[in-house]
Amino acid sequence: MRPVLIGMVLLGFAASAAAGEDDIVLRGMGSFHVGGRIAEVSGKPVREIVRVPGGPPSKLDPNGQFMVEQMYAQYFLPKNRKGKLPLLMWHGGGLTGVTYETTPDGREGWLNLFLRKGWDVYVSDAVERGRAGFAGPDVWQSEPIFLNYADPFERFRIGDGEGSWSSDPSKRKVLTGNQFPVEAYDNYMKQSVPRWLSTDNAIIAAYVALVDKVCPCVLLLHSQGGIFGFKVAEQRPDKVKAIVAVESASAGNVAKAAALKATPTLMLFGDYVDQHPRWAAYKKIDLEYAAAVRAGGGTVDVINLPDIGIKGNSHMLMQDKNNAEIADVIQKWLVGRGLAE
Amino acid sequence: MRPVLIGMVLLGFAASAAAGEDDIVLRGMGSFHVGGRIAEVSGKPVREIVRVPGGPPSKLDPNGQFMVEQMYAQYFLPKNRKGKLPLLMWHGGGLTGVTYETTPDGREGWLNLFLRKGWDVYVSDAVERGRAGFAGPDVWQSEPIFLNYADPFERFRIGDGEGSWSSDPSKRKVLTGNQFPVEAYDNYMKQSVPRWLSTDNAIIAAYVALVDKVCPCVLLLHSQGGIFGFKVAEQRPDKVKAIVAVESASAGNVAKAAALKATPTLMLFGDYVDQHPRWAAYKKIDLEYAAAVRAGGGTVDVINLPDIGIKGNSHMLMQDKNNAEIADVIQKWLVGRGLAE
Repeated sequence: MRPVLIGMVLLGFAASAAAGEDDIVLRGMGSFHVGGRIAEVSGKPVREIVRVPGGPPSKLDPNGQFMVEQMYAQYFLPKNRKGKLPLLMWHGGGLTGVTYETTPDGREGWLNLFLRKGWDVYVSDAVERGRAGFAGPDVWQSEPIFLNYADPFERFRIGDGEGSWSSDPSKRKVLTGNQFPVEAYDNYMKQSVPRWLSTDNAIIAAYVALVDKVCPCVLLLHSQGGIFGFKVAEQRPDKVKAIVAVESASAGNVAKAAALKATPTLMLFGDYVDQHPRWAAYKKIDLEYAAAVRAGGGTVDVINLPDIGIKGNSHMLMQDKNNAEIADVIQKWLVGRGLAE
Repeated sequence: MRPVLIGMVLLGFAASAAAGEDDIVLRGMGSFHVGGRIAEVSGKPVREIVRVPGGPPSKLDPNGQFMVEQMYAQYFLPKNRKGKLPLLMWHGGGLTGVTYETTPDGREGWLNLFLRKGWDVYVSDAVERGRAGFAGPDVWQSEPIFLNYADPFERFRIGDGEGSWSSDPSKRKVLTGNQFPVEAYDNYMKQSVPRWLSTDNAIIAAYVALVDKVCPCVLLLHSQGGIFGFKVAEQRPDKVKAIVAVESASAGNVAKAAALKATPTLMLFGDYVDQHPRWAAYKKIDLEYAAAVRAGGGTVDVINLPDIGIKGNSHMLMQDKNNAEIADVIQKWLVGRGLAE
């Protein structure tokens, strides 16, 4: 009986910390801010404010030194690591890292899915989005824009282009076969945050600081995040070891594309792209950049999902109902590039 | 040999998914937005904008329906659950849920520490903070305020009150014995986000929606979050089963305090409170509320940390160098109330 007992005791010990197949086992998780600069404001009148109803008044000085243009990142490190480098997920315009979390209809997003595939995942909020915070008009001399309900519905290939939104759900013209969880569109709108049109350089500077802190790495880019990602990779080609660009809304600088010669890249596009002029225009820019990368000695693979039988994808691919299937397409490419087991 | 082999095989199976003592094993993690309302804007001119340099122009319509006043929550559910209810962590003014994540100097924050104690933890961003997003001036008719470097340093009992900040580090007057990681104050400033002075009702409405979704629960409140937490508890006394108020910046409505008669409450205060008039004023309001709760049949325990030998705590207790020691004080109280094993 003795050997059995030893086995049982050891087993019991292991079982106390054992995780089921559906559990997520992390060797660490945390967050940080990175980048940013100190801006000085002067010459504005000091005000007295009451921060809390019934509380004591206090001074609000709009002058002085302000921390601005930093960004936020949250990371999750799986115990059973299979990705060889950290995977950084960068969101699109008017959005935050929430893009990659639970989908608007409550399914697991790419953060969880790639964590389960064994990647160290870093989900970030760019400058002026979400937990990055934003600077005031005294520093940026500009105001943010806000998206109404119609805007993403009509632009992001959920509805069938301009005029497809209606406040009456029965009158909305959803694209046939669309995979976006349109029944949860309210929740999608709750993820929307204001954005500025004047902060690109600050955003890129903070992303460079993020790459300098966390990489070598793989970048997973979406939409506006693609523009930033390619430009950052041009500046840090030694640190960005691969790029997955999901419907990048334009790309990097064609004149600098050769910088990516050692950075294998996947460009991924959903459905309905060619028949919607805005997306066709972005895709054309992406493909011209791909050609420039190739001319410089690099490799860019392009996957149009409908070409491999995956249909109905909106611009928000990572939230679409088949988001796990698309994650598998990306994973297969990463494994093929030797970046994961 | 057979029984040993079976034991070893079983052990091997368990070990493949086994977690070490320092690992975090989750049965789930995710995020959601909750609350919010649709606001209508009309009569503003439509603009044409270019969202991406070099990209196609597109219409920006500042009119229409906008989703506003929602809030964000992220949750982590430990496998080895010991807390009997979810623990909701609400941040203070000008901050986000990041307050509870990794500290500015890179140590584990209360999110990780309470997760390790076996609590289902929900960390949220209130309306207009972080990933909750914010509404524009067409909806709120007001502008946010921004905090300069001096403001939290002087107000949050890091420095010794007004005039203690200097842009020259050698001239900063830090409170003697202060536990705040002052060497990482830059990182703390990066966590700071703008706030509005006009959104209290919207914030409370969204918190009520959060409580309706997630609770029964325990609320862990900080600073401005305390005001909101007590007011929400007054509206949902059946769902808020206990409150830990960490330096609540004022409290609920004294006339409604009896609503908390079945909600045991801990009020926790750091060091230097009595000699700083602003904090002494807030504490007085808190203690008057505590008296009103008690008069209504409820129980409020008050812990002044210096009274139990824990000294040097700033207003940002959960980020101070002894944050784990304070988490233990809170845990002990929660266990004593039968809310955790």
